[in-house]
Amino acid sequence: MFRSHTCGELRITHAGEAVTLAGWVQTVRKFGAITFVDLRDRYGITQLLFGEDLNSQLEIQPLGREFVLQIKGKVSERSNKNKNIPTGEIEIKVETFSILNKSAVPPFTIQDDTDGGDDLRMKYRYLDLRRNAVKRNLELRYAVSRSARNYLHENGFYDIETPFLIKSTPEGARDFVVPSRMNAGEFYALPQSPQTFKQLLMVSGYDRYYQIVKCFRDEDLRADRQPEFTQIDCEMSFVEQDDIINMFEGLIKRIFKDVKGIDYTDSVERMTWEDAMWNYGNDKPDIRFDMKITNLKFPLHVFRKEDILSNSPVAAPAFQVFDNAETVVAIAVPGCSEYSRKQTDELTEWVKRPQIGMKGLAFIKCNVDGSFKSSMDKFYDAAKLKAIAETCNAKPGDLILLLAGNEERTRKAMSELRLEMAKRLGLRKNDDFKLLWVLDFPLFEYDEENNRWVARHHPFTSPKPSDIDVMIANDPVIHDASKYLEHPYANIKANAYDIVLNGNEIGGGSIRIYQKELQEKMFAALGMSKEESQHKFGFLLGAFEYGAPPHGGIAFGFDRLCAILGGSESIRDFIAFPKNNSGRDVMLDAPSSIDDKQLEELSIKLDMKK
Amino acid sequence: MFRSHTCGELRITHAGEAVTLAGWVQTVRKFGAITFVDLRDRYGITQLLFGEDLNSQLEIQPLGREFVLQIKGKVSERSNKNKNIPTGEIEIKVETFSILNKSAVPPFTIQDDTDGGDDLRMKYRYLDLRRNAVKRNLELRYAVSRSARNYLHENGFYDIETPFLIKSTPEGARDFVVPSRMNAGEFYALPQSPQTFKQLLMVSGYDRYYQIVKCFRDEDLRADRQPEFTQIDCEMSFVEQDDIINMFEGLIKRIFKDVKGIDYTDSVERMTWEDAMWNYGNDKPDIRFDMKITNLKFPLHVFRKEDILSNSPVAAPAFQVFDNAETVVAIAVPGCSEYSRKQTDELTEWVKRPQIGMKGLAFIKCNVDGSFKSSMDKFYDAAKLKAIAETCNAKPGDLILLLAGNEERTRKAMSELRLEMAKRLGLRKNDDFKLLWVLDFPLFEYDEENNRWVARHHPFTSPKPSDIDVMIANDPVIHDASKYLEHPYANIKANAYDIVLNGNEIGGGSIRIYQKELQEKMFAALGMSKEESQHKFGFLLGAFEYGAPPHGGIAFGFDRLCAILGGSESIRDFIAFPKNNSGRDVMLDAPSSIDDKQLEELSIKLDMKK
Repeated sequence: MFRSHTCGELRITHAGEAVTLAGWVQTVRKFGAITFVDLRDRYGITQLLFGEDLNSQLEIQPLGREFVLQIKGKVSERSNKNKNIPTGEIEIKVETFSILNKSAVPPFTIQDDTDGGDDLRMKYRYLDLRRNAVKRNLELRYAVSRSARNYLHENGFYDIETPFLIKSTPEGARDFVVPSRMNAGEFYALPQSPQTFKQLLMVSGYDRYYQIVKCFRDEDLRADRQPEFTQIDCEMSFVEQDDIINMFEGLIKRIFKDVKGIDYTDSVERMTWEDAMWNYGNDKPDIRFDMKITNLKFPLHVFRKEDILSNSPVAAPAFQVFDNAETVVAIAVPGCSEYSRKQTDELTEWVKRPQIGMKGLAFIKCNVDGSFKSSMDKFYDAAKLKAIAETCNAKPGDLILLLAGNEERTRKAMSELRLEMAKRLGLRKNDDFKLLWVLDFPLFEYDEENNRWVARHHPFTSPKPSDIDVMIANDPVIHDASKYLEHPYANIKANAYDIVLNGNEIGGGSIRIYQKELQEKMFAALGMSKEESQHKFGFLLGAFEYGAPPHGGIAFGFDRLCAILGGSESIRDFIAFPKNNSGRDVMLDAPSSIDDKQLEELSIKLDMKK
Repeated sequence: MFRSHTCGELRITHAGEAVTLAGWVQTVRKFGAITFVDLRDRYGITQLLFGEDLNSQLEIQPLGREFVLQIKGKVSERSNKNKNIPTGEIEIKVETFSILNKSAVPPFTIQDDTDGGDDLRMKYRYLDLRRNAVKRNLELRYAVSRSARNYLHENGFYDIETPFLIKSTPEGARDFVVPSRMNAGEFYALPQSPQTFKQLLMVSGYDRYYQIVKCFRDEDLRADRQPEFTQIDCEMSFVEQDDIINMFEGLIKRIFKDVKGIDYTDSVERMTWEDAMWNYGNDKPDIRFDMKITNLKFPLHVFRKEDILSNSPVAAPAFQVFDNAETVVAIAVPGCSEYSRKQTDELTEWVKRPQIGMKGLAFIKCNVDGSFKSSMDKFYDAAKLKAIAETCNAKPGDLILLLAGNEERTRKAMSELRLEMAKRLGLRKNDDFKLLWVLDFPLFEYDEENNRWVARHHPFTSPKPSDIDVMIANDPVIHDASKYLEHPYANIKANAYDIVLNGNEIGGGSIRIYQKELQEKMFAALGMSKEESQHKFGFLLGAFEYGAPPHGGIAFGFDRLCAILGGSESIRDFIAFPKNNSGRDVMLDAPSSIDDKQLEELSIKLDMKK
């Protein structure tokens, strides 16, 4: 061993001891004849004191930032104590030293506030990983996985590895594929998730399975998506929805406790998908704050069969924009009635950005004196404005923001605006954690382009028990596209659940189909022929012939969960070696070209366009 | 929940309780008006008693093997107790039952001694996984990983995930590659091991890293090799060989304790590679038994510069086969002097099989009366036979077996023969575990075909500290191929270590190179140009410029370790979803062809021969 102690270990109680330390030179400070060096390793920083006697040696072998140094010396009490670090009461009087390795000057500073830009830090990731900020993230990541493993172990789950070289069955997302040399012309696929394998393990009787496992999706990368990502993947047999919810609520609460020291004793709210969409415009609402959406005008929609218009204050024709709009929604932003013209103009610009895509923003200032001031003063009188404010439950001092337009876009825009206003008001605190279960999703979504159903979750999700007969009894074909909402499948609810943390979906799952006929019906409903479903999923349909138990599970997005627990919006800082938005590892310079010999052995050749 | 208890949980103390169980029907036994059913789940088997009152229902809904059944009933004491199972004192008097899922008749019996052949069981792996024998293997596998994680956690290791989509740098084994859609014409590779990443993590100061991780090698599969396999991968900073040995000897001992209940308190023997080759003909000797090889005639070889011939009893010309042979080696097999002609003939046939490749086998029976009987009686007199027996340390009653021929093949054949004889004598017991460290491997192997050096371990292994100067100072080019043994590189020893369990290498590692110049010299020694080493490993050479610490590590073959601990020779039974010897998953039918659209998106096309 190159050391007797780590750089985070020594205390005043060690004073007088002879020790050997090894680590990196954080700083070198010369004061006249003596030199102070901060020596750093994973465990901490220890101050070294090089006396006058070492000066000549230091001249021959000068120390620089990030040099790897080994020293022998005696622990002694510091005169000038540093209360901010655990080793701050001592320093080491260096007797001998040896430079184990030199370092060139790093391309950016190894400090919390580094001067390195994103690209530079990605290229020299091995140096970026030295920074405390990044190190803390990876430590948190390990703590989360450790906590999850302990909880799952204590609850009888087995960690069982599933294969990485599997079969390509593209459904939705694209597979990454791997040409097989030994089976020329054939390809493996990398798993998008171990979904079918964990279901097979239930069929095999393993009862409780988990895995913290890499998954792969070849999608066009949006910001903060990675082609390879990690899931905490779980499955249980002989369970119903409530069993899963209780078990995995427990998992997240345990992680809060182990990793953040938070006793999350509140029961976790459960909300239907309908209510989430209705009140928050979003299936993963942030419920750390209220500011619910008021639906002033809404078309008859699959998820709420309610006639909003007849008793809405915006019902009678008055303001053409609202009159012509499919949807009018509002939020009452607390305490913002005194926004200036400049501020409301800026908000209007904000909703008109292409990412939000609204044509404009209407507002009503609910002044503290009880009066109203609105961008719609020309169209609505005070009584009408008051009626709207009352419908919105606005209090004096609130600013009501209204959006109108096409249903889907408007709802989405209002959801974004709600989050933005909460952010501006400081209502989205990183250290405030609020969980939510969203339940009762639709089983199918309508695919306009192909006039057919697609699975909202995945093709293995079971309908609610009460909807199974509806699914079996009806023909999935949509004969009249304009009336797809009237098709019985439009109302089938999934036995599925998402868990949401601070407005982010951190996990989702479902009770699975375990009956062969129902699974076949599902494949048919998604437009798969018998041949196709047999080719792709014959093994699963086969397994369902031999006594498949009722089962269900969940998968957590591990990278995202860690990022939120670490108070960050970006998952990249919680991955040791992430890829950039083009799917490149700029440190490795991968992907890259390969040898012709490799291509030939794999029986493939390049087929470049142009 | 579909159950109140599992099928392994109920005891006599539960008598009288109303319970709900769910599981699989193991057996149905009808005795007159009553029916006994054994209900099975992961946790055990519970006997169910269906009384006369349920007969009419059982007629309408008959139970079959592997049906999924839910029952409600009362726990009661059995009259006919089964002491062999933990639930054997009770049975459940069934009140109501419900068939949750039916099962077709399985293609083989779900029993320890199944009637299913290998191919059938691979195709229906989800049924094979139900068998106790396989289930116990996967439980053992999980116990090993759990034990390893606990030990490594307690010793300050972090589990840090490294990427799966990396850069192709084929060295030795072939990479599996993954075409990149977003970077047309370029490929990722799947990692053969996280070697360079764990070294970068050491450069980044993470100090102690581990991962239980999938690795990939596209090699022609020998029996019991898998294209994807799992490693326990570890790395430490500021360590020397002894630190690694102590830490990971501790890991294996902990696994013995946790998984097998074995207190392995013996200190683990350490043996040089030279001694292993000399005494066992093998770099991973099984030392559960002695039967060392006696070297009667041996050429001057790089690994032992000793003149065997001059004082060997086979030195003087007498027996042409020995006189002409490069190598003559012998073992004394205890207690086999009374082997019949038939038995020695059979052994001769055994060594003549193509896998062994010897031309014949000589023997000397050391009779208990002190006389000798040999297949070489025509050539050697009694005194000579006695001299050979004495050199071999043979005792009366032993059978000396001798092989002669080309050095490498003969040594290897004798190693195989030694293991075979031990197996026949019952000296290789599954429940007897003996660890061994093999040390001081040569750093380089000679590649005859290209007249150059190849890395025996991998290009990141450091030479012994005392050999670093030899490596730096000398030109790696071999000017005279016939004298390669005289090249200074032939004698350089690696700072590497293998850990051997019962004759199987279960892990191996090395102290790494951490000096940029030495790493460059290594790449040059392996025939890599500066451009090539920069293209392939520029990131590592770059990292070594910024303060790389001394470091080293080890990787364990997790599948193999589990198999040996489970007393099996085959890793396949310790993998949930293994591939066959052609790299196929016959259950999934993967690899398989993919759509033209997928190929087009990936900018590749097939290039089939003929």
